[in-house]
Amino acid sequence: MRDEKLLKKAISLMPKLIYKNVSPVGTDYQTKQLKKGDSIVLDFGDHQVGRLAFDLKAKGSHPDAPAYLRLHFAEREIELTENPKEYNGWVCASWIEEEYIHVDVIPSTVKLPRRYAFRYVKIEVLDISDKYKIYFDNVVCTSESSADDTKLVALNTTNELHKSLDKVAIKTLHDCMQLVFEDGPKRDRRLWIGDLRMQALANYETYRNYELVKEGLYLFGALTNDEGRVGACIFLEPEPEVDDTFMFDYSLFFINILLDYYRKTADLQAVKDLWHVCKRQIELAMNNLDDNYVVADSDKLGWCFVDWNLGLNKQGSAQGILLYALEAAIELAQIVEDVLVEEEYAQYYLQIKTSANKFLFDSENGVYISGSITIILKH
Amino acid sequence: MRDEKLLKKAISLMPKLIYKNVSPVGTDYQTKQLKKGDSIVLDFGDHQVGRLAFDLKAKGSHPDAPAYLRLHFAEREIELTENPKEYNGWVCASWIEEEYIHVDVIPSTVKLPRRYAFRYVKIEVLDISDKYKIYFDNVVCTSESSADDTKLVALNTTNELHKSLDKVAIKTLHDCMQLVFEDGPKRDRRLWIGDLRMQALANYETYRNYELVKEGLYLFGALTNDEGRVGACIFLEPEPEVDDTFMFDYSLFFINILLDYYRKTADLQAVKDLWHVCKRQIELAMNNLDDNYVVADSDKLGWCFVDWNLGLNKQGSAQGILLYALEAAIELAQIVEDVLVEEEYAQYYLQIKTSANKFLFDSENGVYISGSITIILKH
Repeated sequence: MRDEKLLKKAISLMPKLIYKNVSPVGTDYQTKQLKKGDSIVLDFGDHQVGRLAFDLKAKGSHPDAPAYLRLHFAEREIELTENPKEYNGWVCASWIEEEYIHVDVIPSTVKLPRRYAFRYVKIEVLDISDKYKIYFDNVVCTSESSADDTKLVALNTTNELHKSLDKVAIKTLHDCMQLVFEDGPKRDRRLWIGDLRMQALANYETYRNYELVKEGLYLFGALTNDEGRVGACIFLEPEPEVDDTFMFDYSLFFINILLDYYRKTADLQAVKDLWHVCKRQIELAMNNLDDNYVVADSDKLGWCFVDWNLGLNKQGSAQGILLYALEAAIELAQIVEDVLVEEEYAQYYLQIKTSANKFLFDSENGVYISGSITIILKH
Repeated sequence: MRDEKLLKKAISLMPKLIYKNVSPVGTDYQTKQLKKGDSIVLDFGDHQVGRLAFDLKAKGSHPDAPAYLRLHFAEREIELTENPKEYNGWVCASWIEEEYIHVDVIPSTVKLPRRYAFRYVKIEVLDISDKYKIYFDNVVCTSESSADDTKLVALNTTNELHKSLDKVAIKTLHDCMQLVFEDGPKRDRRLWIGDLRMQALANYETYRNYELVKEGLYLFGALTNDEGRVGACIFLEPEPEVDDTFMFDYSLFFINILLDYYRKTADLQAVKDLWHVCKRQIELAMNNLDDNYVVADSDKLGWCFVDWNLGLNKQGSAQGILLYALEAAIELAQIVEDVLVEEEYAQYYLQIKTSANKFLFDSENGVYISGSITIILKH
């Protein structure tokens, strides 16, 4: 389903990106003249999310053939020694940040149109004619983020380790804050609800960019599947669209993210706008219970995320997450003064909690486990 | 030397390119859905010089990773079976028409900015995620040329072989006629004086684009080396500049090209504008004679082109080409009514011709040869 009113509001909340030009550090790269087979590594001093531009210049005769270059971007220098052709993981290799480009006119300014997440870039001269050598000038990365460092709340501590951890955490958050909270700016680059929940919480203690959280909530609320289920992630391009991945826990997290947001902003209008989306998620989750008020287990891979371990049984966790979401939904019902729903959810909460204790609690180990694992353990 | 007045006139003569959209033939490529490792070959039916654009579309889930494609352009289909990495010739490999591109947004329209000379293009899917397949739609090559086919003079013949030869020749000329007469639109792509001379003659019998010849003459006249020598070729980008290659015969051909042009157009102003350039080329060539009025031989590779055989001695040919240029210069002197120069050149002509017969004529074989070869033969 596509709620145009909510979508319009989401798009109006999309931030303006803040751009910053960063130059390579600690190298006199401009003096290095390169011939066929030569290469140069540039270090931008810190992790960047942005676009690369440079002037490509020549020494010698007028360039009489294009320069054929390979650019390889890397977050850590050691990546530059790796051959992308040997990569064989399950993440699509098209995310590897390498480009082969021909530059026809030298001198000229080359602007790479794509965005990269990197600190280092290695530029190899695959081929030029022997009538000239090339060198680089005015290399610049135009970094982009919607995080405004002037609004950053300082961490109040004298603990140096905590300071260091905080610095890395904030840099990571900064680089993920783009037109939406991206799960990661290097690959995927999407708004995932599991990431949004944690990024929003970290953001409340640091950049306090409430609009970016609100935008995310309205996007997920506007773009659901045919039965109104909140999706696991949203694509922005070529136009905003929900992915066809839906997960039991991710859909429910929408409710908790909305409550967290309300607690920080007291934005009652947003809760009113999105309350029907929350109710629909509870309804869909309740449809997934068995007669004993236990979340039905499933052998469908990824039906409930919880953890990257896809082989792990998720039933017990799903039961807990439903309770976590119900608790938030009850508070939101109070906020929008939906008394009947509040009472209904309170009853659900008690029944589901009782069932968890009855069917999913492993008293021997003192943990909640899944029903099916219990069965497996009994075998 | 850079004559701004001549250069300005040259640039004002630069033609408007004529664009034509050409679609692939004989294939329902739109129906072919491609996954990682698949490829497709598109045939544009005839040789094209132009730029490629296409819509890249997806079937399946929303694309969740870029499409990484390799495009390989070929004039003949057999080239597509060749691996550019195995190429080891002396022409710079950066001319090989292949590209590796990432397409981040699908569906989207992809426009390749570079110009290619090709009939076939092979597109390989190096990597996409397994959540979708891709297919191509609205593939178009926007061909470009300054040759206007509506102005083409028909060949008056009933000989089918001559018709076929003429068709190929005209197509070749058409594809070389760009902002200047290019030596070839696939690689190099420059205005060379040796090519200009022959292309101009072919053009007079076909497209009759006199301005394109005139532009070439003014470019060569405007951009000479420090001593006023006409260069072997001209670069247009980033701004018009003469190459640092100069050849005895190529500099002299300027005179013959100007005379051929005048004979077709009666453009007296052009002859007047460029007459001093012609005189300087004769002067420089005369400085290259020995006391016997024989062109001094040289072991400098490429001092005089004549032929691609770099090992061939060029002295005898150079003597002949100087006579050929002097003959044209004498006629141009008459045209601009430069009587003193006409008489001077007539004297040179007699002396140089006499010397050729005396020192370079091999009466046994009835051919003119080089002095040094004669010596070698005598050993």
